[in-house]
Amino acid sequence: MFFAKGHGTGNDFVLLPDPDGELDLTPELVARLCARHFGIGADGVLRIVRTAKHPEAAPYAADAEWFMDYRNADGSVAEMCGNGARVFARYLTGYGLVDVPRFAVATRAGLVDVEVTPTEVSVDMPRPRLGGGSVVRLGGVDYTGTTADVGNPHLVCAVDDVSTVDLREPPQFDAAVFPESANVEFVAEGEPVEGTDAHVLMRVYERGSAETLSCGTGACAVAAVALRDAGRDTGTVAVDVPGGRLTISIDGDHCVLTGPALIVATGDVLL
Amino acid sequence: MFFAKGHGTGNDFVLLPDPDGELDLTPELVARLCARHFGIGADGVLRIVRTAKHPEAAPYAADAEWFMDYRNADGSVAEMCGNGARVFARYLTGYGLVDVPRFAVATRAGLVDVEVTPTEVSVDMPRPRLGGGSVVRLGGVDYTGTTADVGNPHLVCAVDDVSTVDLREPPQFDAAVFPESANVEFVAEGEPVEGTDAHVLMRVYERGSAETLSCGTGACAVAAVALRDAGRDTGTVAVDVPGGRLTISIDGDHCVLTGPALIVATGDVLL
Repeated sequence: MFFAKGHGTGNDFVLLPDPDGELDLTPELVARLCARHFGIGADGVLRIVRTAKHPEAAPYAADAEWFMDYRNADGSVAEMCGNGARVFARYLTGYGLVDVPRFAVATRAGLVDVEVTPTEVSVDMPRPRLGGGSVVRLGGVDYTGTTADVGNPHLVCAVDDVSTVDLREPPQFDAAVFPESANVEFVAEGEPVEGTDAHVLMRVYERGSAETLSCGTGACAVAAVALRDAGRDTGTVAVDVPGGRLTISIDGDHCVLTGPALIVATGDVLL
Repeated sequence: MFFAKGHGTGNDFVLLPDPDGELDLTPELVARLCARHFGIGADGVLRIVRTAKHPEAAPYAADAEWFMDYRNADGSVAEMCGNGARVFARYLTGYGLVDVPRFAVATRAGLVDVEVTPTEVSVDMPRPRLGGGSVVRLGGVDYTGTTADVGNPHLVCAVDDVSTVDLREPPQFDAAVFPESANVEFVAEGEPVEGTDAHVLMRVYERGSAETLSCGTGACAVAAVALRDAGRDTGTVAVDVPGGRLTISIDGDHCVLTGPALIVATGDVLL
């Protein structure tokens, strides 16, 4: 079985090119591939299937040639992954499956537009919807934040210093606000960055996982809060996650997530 | 650059076949290869070089065709790694570099004998030398153990239940006993296993690293203590580490470490 491994700001993926949708990608196989010590190791799997060849994607066949079949590391199905879509697009153009720099990709959350340049890949996400406040408890400390919906639920908490937040244990949310838990982002103001309207440092604890090096939807949530706090409706925000820098531009209904996306290895899985 | 990835009881390695010793394997490159999210991801690198082609290994050229150039994940050089030697031997026989099941491998700690079967690989290590007692502090608790020298220093501590030991923070050793720190193993008795003289459950905190899924020299230290406690000079011990089962047979000056060793992927690194 051929594979590639790639990452976007430290969010890493095993890519499985399967144009005709012939691979029996069971949750067990996904978990074995993603196991850090026993398999290849990754945050998730991106199966690359022609939209026309996948039952869930066939309705998009006229608009997108490729369907991103995304799976979490535990084998569960997920609708969308911002950094995953960026790495997916990098593979498509880098390995000759797409020969234009701007195109649509089919996902379980619908079509998303991507743009590939030699250094970065952008994905056009829905604008985050901001809600009211809520409190989360971590390491015995209560933090107040702003709720945000980016397709998945987030709580964005401003702190003085992101490095001192204890993210070793799962956060305790208000179940009335987040009945199915949420991702929580901690943010602090960064030094001004040219060409942006705000710059924030971010750490994230991902729902069902742990602290991660990057979270695309989390960066979008954080950017939306940063613009609101700056009194702006549109603008560009630099978000520094532990795995690198993401740039988010929000305008109208669009939230464009941009950052590096690389393929680091290709080969054969022997599992 | 061609690579393979393999593991022995969850101790995983990037293997780099470099028969003529032409690769400039800098510490930076090792660290990039071993980075879990940005590279391939591994506990260390095993470069495969002909003894005759490596200045440190040339004296062994008459006895061993291949030299195991082992590097820790941070890029530093290490003398020996028991699980690494087992994975190294699996690659040599699986990919046609050696065509006999028993042979010698050159390491920085000298020649080691290995034996490869379809299911397991054994490596013949020096018998651990047991010393006196010492105390280590972890998670605010003091544990008393037996010191052991397996080429590297160990402290083996018996506990009632290995699952309850808090291995999240580095252990604090008695600097008079372990001036350069040590690995610490926590062991509890397991159910009897046929064909063995003792069965222990083990968790380990590796010096300079963290809790790991397996440690070959640690399992040897633990087996030596288990046999001593059983009043035996020789014997066989099953050691269950978080990554699987290792079997250790001690006789005379020899300590043979046996367990599974697999190659899980091969390919090209694009870093």
